[in-house]
Amino acid sequence: MPHSVTVREVGPRDGLQLVSNVMSTATKMEWITRQAAAGFDEIEVTSFVPPKLMPQFSDAVEVTQAANQVPGLTVSALALNLKGGIRALQAGARVVNFVLSASEAHNQSNVRCSTEASLRALRGILDWQWQFAPQACVTAAIATSFGCSLQGDVPQTQVCALAAQLAEAKVAEITLADTVGYANPRQVKRLFQAVATEVGDVPLAAHFHDTRGMGLTNVLAALDCGIFKFDAALAGLGGCPFAPGASGNIATEDTVYMLETMGLRTSIDLDALLRLREDFARWLPEEPLQGRLGIAGIARNFTPAA
Amino acid sequence: MPHSVTVREVGPRDGLQLVSNVMSTATKMEWITRQAAAGFDEIEVTSFVPPKLMPQFSDAVEVTQAANQVPGLTVSALALNLKGGIRALQAGARVVNFVLSASEAHNQSNVRCSTEASLRALRGILDWQWQFAPQACVTAAIATSFGCSLQGDVPQTQVCALAAQLAEAKVAEITLADTVGYANPRQVKRLFQAVATEVGDVPLAAHFHDTRGMGLTNVLAALDCGIFKFDAALAGLGGCPFAPGASGNIATEDTVYMLETMGLRTSIDLDALLRLREDFARWLPEEPLQGRLGIAGIARNFTPAA
Repeated sequence: MPHSVTVREVGPRDGLQLVSNVMSTATKMEWITRQAAAGFDEIEVTSFVPPKLMPQFSDAVEVTQAANQVPGLTVSALALNLKGGIRALQAGARVVNFVLSASEAHNQSNVRCSTEASLRALRGILDWQWQFAPQACVTAAIATSFGCSLQGDVPQTQVCALAAQLAEAKVAEITLADTVGYANPRQVKRLFQAVATEVGDVPLAAHFHDTRGMGLTNVLAALDCGIFKFDAALAGLGGCPFAPGASGNIATEDTVYMLETMGLRTSIDLDALLRLREDFARWLPEEPLQGRLGIAGIARNFTPAA
Repeated sequence: MPHSVTVREVGPRDGLQLVSNVMSTATKMEWITRQAAAGFDEIEVTSFVPPKLMPQFSDAVEVTQAANQVPGLTVSALALNLKGGIRALQAGARVVNFVLSASEAHNQSNVRCSTEASLRALRGILDWQWQFAPQACVTAAIATSFGCSLQGDVPQTQVCALAAQLAEAKVAEITLADTVGYANPRQVKRLFQAVATEVGDVPLAAHFHDTRGMGLTNVLAALDCGIFKFDAALAGLGGCPFAPGASGNIATEDTVYMLETMGLRTSIDLDALLRLREDFARWLPEEPLQGRLGIAGIARNFTPAA
């Protein structure tokens, strides 16, 4: 194992996605700024989806521009179609993370088109980026890589074939996402190993949900096969639309804590992160906070990874 | 990895330990009976501690005797001193699980004597068992094996030395317990591997808490080094006396689910277990239920390990 691991905060995007109360741009920026100051190099700050569909992200341009002023921060934004991807690049996103689903049923439900059509949109964004935003990069996340609440099983060959197409399209990074919390550690190892052989030197990352309690076990399994970049959301914000009350993203603070106790350096200041979590609870009083560390506190014998 | 794993339910003991409302003997027996029917071979049904100190277990004898009538169930009971161990054997416990702490500070705080004095008590129980209860067995759990909220770090050499003494005393099984939720997966691997070389052919088991979110990751790490018996509590019952609201034991249903999704057979009927969890919530309306599976439900593509 290497000595350092990257935790990418996705709370301002994946976390807020299911929150009905719109968070003000100023509060989002306090969150992003403080989390960057706590040591996060990359934050997915928003989603370029139609504001009519998701009022939570109607300030996508403003947030992207303001986040670009935060020293040392790589600003990442999500896109689901050609228009969103180009808008994100125009707004100055350093990373556009394009999401498409391995499950056809999920892709249709999520963006009302086939996975193949999503792939064409991605190629369009890549073309645009090469021509007009050479300083940026486009990454891709394969949603429902580990199973789908609509389709059920998602065959490994389906995920591998899509990953190969993404690599061929020259995305800068591929994330395998457990969108609905179906992954188990054995499957994580199998799939990451299989995908790694398909994508050459394209870096891989992991996006796990803790819906069924296996979020961190899946991180552990991915670490074991050489994955060193993980998405997480502060306080595990972001539930599951199909299971009210269920948890969504793995909690950033728990993820960082596990990595650090294992001697894997994240360069994140846990105390600062836990202070942010306390304020965060006041900003979203109606949201149940997930994550254990915020309740139990850091162990008295804890020392950060050297 | 082998094909099957044992999950030992400890909720009626470790879970109820911190519950101030005394559960009736009848309700305890409904819990134990239904959980046995769901496929649990061994349940830690009670604790033989002075009733004055823990009114929750004043029915220890009745529960032990009644549980012995449950078909196919191996009845386990906890003891912390000589008197408790002999009472448990006299009541008919098939397994007496003796707990002592690797941390001197924790042993003093828990049972007001040194670890060495606890070890003498254990030897006394073993003597009594060999003479008067040959059908039973005595196991030992090393509390604070992975760190202590009083002492801080617990050196690996300290745990190994104690495990060696337990093996020499001929206990039937040794459990390494993360009493305060300090363990991380890397440490779990290191310690189990080190202890395994000390104890010869004495079987090892693991008792993890999920206090800081790493409970199931520690199960995964222990599986990786050949541990195939795990304690867990239904709905993660049993908090942490030092962190109000924090979670304690790993949740049985989440543990079983993870193992089964990984192809490791537990012989447990998850649907029956989740039905029991629902009734359980009504029996203990004031206790926060932990565990994710009970909220999110079983994935639609789940198939139990064959």
